[in-house]
Amino acid sequence: MSGFVWPVRVYLEDTDAQGVVYNASYFRFLERARTEWLRDRGVDHRRLRERDGVMLVLAGIEASFQAPARLDDLLCVSAELSELSGARVVFEQSIHRQSLEGELLCRGVAHVACVDVERGRPRRLPASLLDGLS
Amino acid sequence: MSGFVWPVRVYLEDTDAQGVVYNASYFRFLERARTEWLRDRGVDHRRLRERDGVMLVLAGIEASFQAPARLDDLLCVSAELSELSGARVVFEQSIHRQSLEGELLCRGVAHVACVDVERGRPRRLPASLLDGLS
Amino acid sequence: MSGFVWPVRVYLEDTDAQGVVYNASYFRFLERARTEWLRDRGVDHRRLRERDGVMLVLAGIEASFQAPARLDDLLCVSAELSELSGARVVFEQSIHRQSLEGELLCRGVAHVACVDVERGRPRRLPASLLDGLS
Amino acid sequence: MSGFVWPVRVYLEDTDAQGVVYNASYFRFLERARTEWLRDRGVDHRRLRERDGVMLVLAGIEASFQAPARLDDLLCVSAELSELSGARVVFEQSIHRQSLEGELLCRGVAHVACVDVERGRPRRLPASLLDGLS
Repeated sequence: MSGFVWPVRVYLEDTDAQGVVYNASYFRFLERARTEWLRDRGVDHRRLRERDGVMLVLAGIEASFQAPARLDDLLCVSAELSELSGARVVFEQSIHRQSLEGELLCRGVAHVACVDVERGRPRRLPASLLDGLS
Repeated sequence: MSGFVWPVRVYLEDTDAQGVVYNASYFRFLERARTEWLRDRGVDHRRLRERDGVMLVLAGIEASFQAPARLDDLLCVSAELSELSGARVVFEQSIHRQSLEGELLCRGVAHVACVDVERGRPRRLPASLLDGLS
Repeated sequence: MSGFVWPVRVYLEDTDAQGVVYNASYFRFLERARTEWLRDRGVDHRRLRERDGVMLVLAGIEASFQAPARLDDLLCVSAELSELSGARVVFEQSIHRQSLEGELLCRGVAHVACVDVERGRPRRLPASLLDGLS
Repeated sequence: MSGFVWPVRVYLEDTDAQGVVYNASYFRFLERARTEWLRDRGVDHRRLRERDGVMLVLAGIEASFQAPARLDDLLCVSAELSELSGARVVFEQSIHRQSLEGELLCRGVAHVACVDVERGRPRRLPASLLDGLS
């Protein structure tokens, strides 16, 4: 359960007229880190869909914002598996400026559900995925 | 403290390749309803900034997703003030399909902070804003 | 070939740290107007997909930006069919502030192609769609 | 005037319910490459604003879409300076799948204007910027 970090550069597209990163952008950044965490374990969205007939969807998320990220910042987004059970994966995540030692900007907890592509219903994580995650 | 609802139409821009509304889009919808709730009370972001020197920023948010919204759906997004104190406003929010009586898709609680534009520090809500909110 | 206009409110999500509407947001606004133009004629993306097995995709677009839209602005986005042939529809579009008589902010020309959902290849517009458009 | 390329990974946030990259996302990708082209020359948006009192804004853009990018694709976005005069910079850009030798997905021409931050009017490119660009 070691930490995983993914760098994200802040572009104009991510900011808003208050001069900082727009709140929904942080959720895009958090998801990029979860996606790369998966890819790092040999799993991607497309393969899950085509090979296993499942998709991972966000069932719930909490985030708190400590300080604003700004245009041109380089961010360090972390994703750590904190729970894994049946059809659910829970990630603890953070966003720091520049590096994990930099200023903490955001903390989040993401609850991800495994869902059957055809029926849209919760489904146990496929064995291939569980192998990749552990 | 009566409820306020705002209609949101789902466009291609809001959806993702899983065929449903992308998770960060819900946070954009929730903010539209909070912004319109304010406008309904005679307050908008620009006026707050220029007249009062403050901006409202999201300090934290929790959301749970019960069912997916889809392309072309008409959504009904609610915003209800649940707490008002010093430099913080808390909103309880929901997203239903079609109307408040339609299927519940998302529930959220948004913690909004009042921040000084110049110094970026928390500041008590200006009286003019408090008047508008109560 | 009368004009069609669709109102769009500018939210924080649409702006950037330069204090104005972010460039890619205009393309979202232009598409909302095209989508509503279609809906106004009884056609929506979902129906096209399910009933006719086609989707409308953007094949090309040109836009020029005359003046910036800003947070809280109400915009008036127009869509006018300027060409209709085989598998292509061309729209001339504009974005004005407040109303069609307001300041011109953006002009665009959008080339939309009809594509087979299964094979991803161009396909003639279905008769049902052509009827709706004329 | 050698070419510059910037890799972009396609995430869920970039796609739409048609199963491909959403059209406005390409404009975000094109801008990332222009921004990184600048950064590569020692210039960033924040510095331009604070040191020179100018910002670069998109005055016009044309794009044609040849083939769709898809979820999980790695894209190669190019930016090449094709004109530099007074208050304008023109970039020729492309998006290929995987590498410059991969399938061509998009071609674009972006007209970027230099604008005074205070007055919002066109301004000649500052000497420091011109030095960086040539």
